[in-house]
Amino acid sequence: MALIVQKYGGTSVGSLERMQNVAARARKTQEQGHRVVLIVSAMAGETNRLLGMAHKLTPLPDARELDALAATGEQVSAALVALAIQAQGGKAKSFLGHQLKIMTDSAYTKARILAIDAGRLHEALDSGAIGVVAGFQGVDDAGNITTLGRGGSDTSAVAVAAALGADACEIYTDVDGVYTTDPNICPSAKKIDKVSYEEMLELASLGAKVLQIRSVEVAMKYQVPVEVKSSFSDTPGTWVVREDEALESTVVRGVALDKNEARVMLVGCDDKPGVVAKIFGALADQHIAVDMIIQSPSRHSNGRNGPSVDVTFTVNKSDLERTKLIVAGVLESVGGTAAEYDENVVKVSIVGLGMRSHAGVAAKMFALLAKEGVNIQAIATSEIRVSCLVESKYAELSVRALHDGFELGA
Amino acid sequence: MALIVQKYGGTSVGSLERMQNVAARARKTQEQGHRVVLIVSAMAGETNRLLGMAHKLTPLPDARELDALAATGEQVSAALVALAIQAQGGKAKSFLGHQLKIMTDSAYTKARILAIDAGRLHEALDSGAIGVVAGFQGVDDAGNITTLGRGGSDTSAVAVAAALGADACEIYTDVDGVYTTDPNICPSAKKIDKVSYEEMLELASLGAKVLQIRSVEVAMKYQVPVEVKSSFSDTPGTWVVREDEALESTVVRGVALDKNEARVMLVGCDDKPGVVAKIFGALADQHIAVDMIIQSPSRHSNGRNGPSVDVTFTVNKSDLERTKLIVAGVLESVGGTAAEYDENVVKVSIVGLGMRSHAGVAAKMFALLAKEGVNIQAIATSEIRVSCLVESKYAELSVRALHDGFELGA
Repeated sequence: MALIVQKYGGTSVGSLERMQNVAARARKTQEQGHRVVLIVSAMAGETNRLLGMAHKLTPLPDARELDALAATGEQVSAALVALAIQAQGGKAKSFLGHQLKIMTDSAYTKARILAIDAGRLHEALDSGAIGVVAGFQGVDDAGNITTLGRGGSDTSAVAVAAALGADACEIYTDVDGVYTTDPNICPSAKKIDKVSYEEMLELASLGAKVLQIRSVEVAMKYQVPVEVKSSFSDTPGTWVVREDEALESTVVRGVALDKNEARVMLVGCDDKPGVVAKIFGALADQHIAVDMIIQSPSRHSNGRNGPSVDVTFTVNKSDLERTKLIVAGVLESVGGTAAEYDENVVKVSIVGLGMRSHAGVAAKMFALLAKEGVNIQAIATSEIRVSCLVESKYAELSVRALHDGFELGA
Repeated sequence: MALIVQKYGGTSVGSLERMQNVAARARKTQEQGHRVVLIVSAMAGETNRLLGMAHKLTPLPDARELDALAATGEQVSAALVALAIQAQGGKAKSFLGHQLKIMTDSAYTKARILAIDAGRLHEALDSGAIGVVAGFQGVDDAGNITTLGRGGSDTSAVAVAAALGADACEIYTDVDGVYTTDPNICPSAKKIDKVSYEEMLELASLGAKVLQIRSVEVAMKYQVPVEVKSSFSDTPGTWVVREDEALESTVVRGVALDKNEARVMLVGCDDKPGVVAKIFGALADQHIAVDMIIQSPSRHSNGRNGPSVDVTFTVNKSDLERTKLIVAGVLESVGGTAAEYDENVVKVSIVGLGMRSHAGVAAKMFALLAKEGVNIQAIATSEIRVSCLVESKYAELSVRALHDGFELGA
């Protein structure tokens, strides 16, 4: 007998009929002798409907109220799925964030889970019930309702699985696993059977939207085996597991595409200590996350004595307007002569544990892009990833060239 | 400076635009120097939408899950109204049942409030905010979400007003007060300026749907002055107050019509001790409330020696099916020969404090009905009320005859 946590996304609970399917699957798992806990998202479209009302009232809604509002979507799903299980003759009980004491910090709309009291869930399981937990939500220590950000139900699921000491966390979604790249771009993209937490973390943060990044971090921290699979079929999905369990060590596991970054360049800054700290300190103060950073000797003179540098970095497009204000505020004090902004860029990346031990992977990537005439605007690397910023029009071409070049196809 | 609680029903918060009106009214009250707390219902139609989904899944949904589901309606309203106030430059904070520790018993779908911790509301008011409380909901001591039954937001409002020691509780609705009878039946019906708690209690329990009965009980217990008024105009409404403040002492304050009762008759029961106790004990065990009760010598023989009686009573129509099962179970043991059920009845009532000191009021009522040829099937009285059960087809005629006969018209 195992303890299985199953998470169902908005599409999987998008109608009463689909909820009945979810109920049937959960019951089937229970009938196989397992203890079952479900984590459910809001019905597809519901979160947008709720937040849409808030934004009609005010362009900058208060985050505390937004969270109280949005959390109702998952509350509705949890109650309805519990009822669907009962309607099929099963036993079920719904739980909200505050009822399970899913304690988070107070960072509304993007809160982080700090602790979960799994006691009440264990009680429900002991009584033979299926626990149905509203995903996406928690509560801070003052009792305010918080939410975990888009895709937060994934994190709810993994965190609940960790708190319960579950044997597996199954993430049911509208795709049947994690692919070597987006199948809409590369028809030859292949489903990955096993991927390590580290690789999944890179893939998730690079735009493979199958799992919320934070959920992978929690899974890695607590060593929760996660399976991403389709709620519309019974085919095996993709397991996200410890590195030593992700047997087949491939140099490149997948190719990811991220269209959400914008490039910023401060031209002709002073080349002296403290300049870069000033720029990125100002951004950090406003909680703007910076991704790729490049500092290079300026091709332009700043008209003063001494060398000058161009500082290039990328930010999320949604942060670009605020970034412009901050850059305008510091540009003069760092000696910059101009600021350039470019939203017409994408980040294409290759990810794989094998890169640690294989030399020449980055070189091969650059060569594959060059062969297609794609100019690289910036490069960033981690131990198991190489990312290149390229012009938007080359996005799909670059992904296909890399996917084929590294022989990832089916 | 006063502390005012304002309750807005589903129609009053039925759209974002109406929520903006609610916000404006609350802000205006605050600008007049008062401390303001709002209690809001779910947007009109929302509760039915939610419960409709549950009933599509299962004909007899679990009450705990129904409450978790239905409570989201008020949660949405509270967050949106708080945002609407903020959008107008005001300060506001929403509160849910569990956040205010609106403690109730565990009688899902019809829970009763046991206690409220007004501390967090006082904090919000001290900071200059308008408190926006989700009506209709509470939490039991195990942290389960409960709801207070249809119209429960009225009770939330009065209970919060009592806990806060508020100076007044204003109930905003889609009518502009309590009328001498339903104006749809009697165009001459007149708005009542002041009515005592006792009278309102009778009127509320008799089908004048302006206020939930329980809310009047709480108002009476804690002596909370309540004003029922329209959210679409600024005209004064009806004050529900202590008897000594309801100056104008009228013999009959109003005429009420209740279409929700069904008549049950057990024919030919044994006329001996314990028979009636057995019948009503069985009903009470199933929490079925019985209203009018009449025991009369049976016109039928039960075929045994000794006298026999017919026992007639009324129950809410929604309880009739369960009542039939219970009656079938006890009929033989009380010697009954048959059970009759009649849904084709209504209860028409007159209510007024003055009845205590005026003789002949009931006699006048019976005469007025007799004059119209209306046969009375059952009679029930309290100190300040007389109710007659009549055939459904006479419902409106009876109301008009009584309203005119007691000269209640404008």
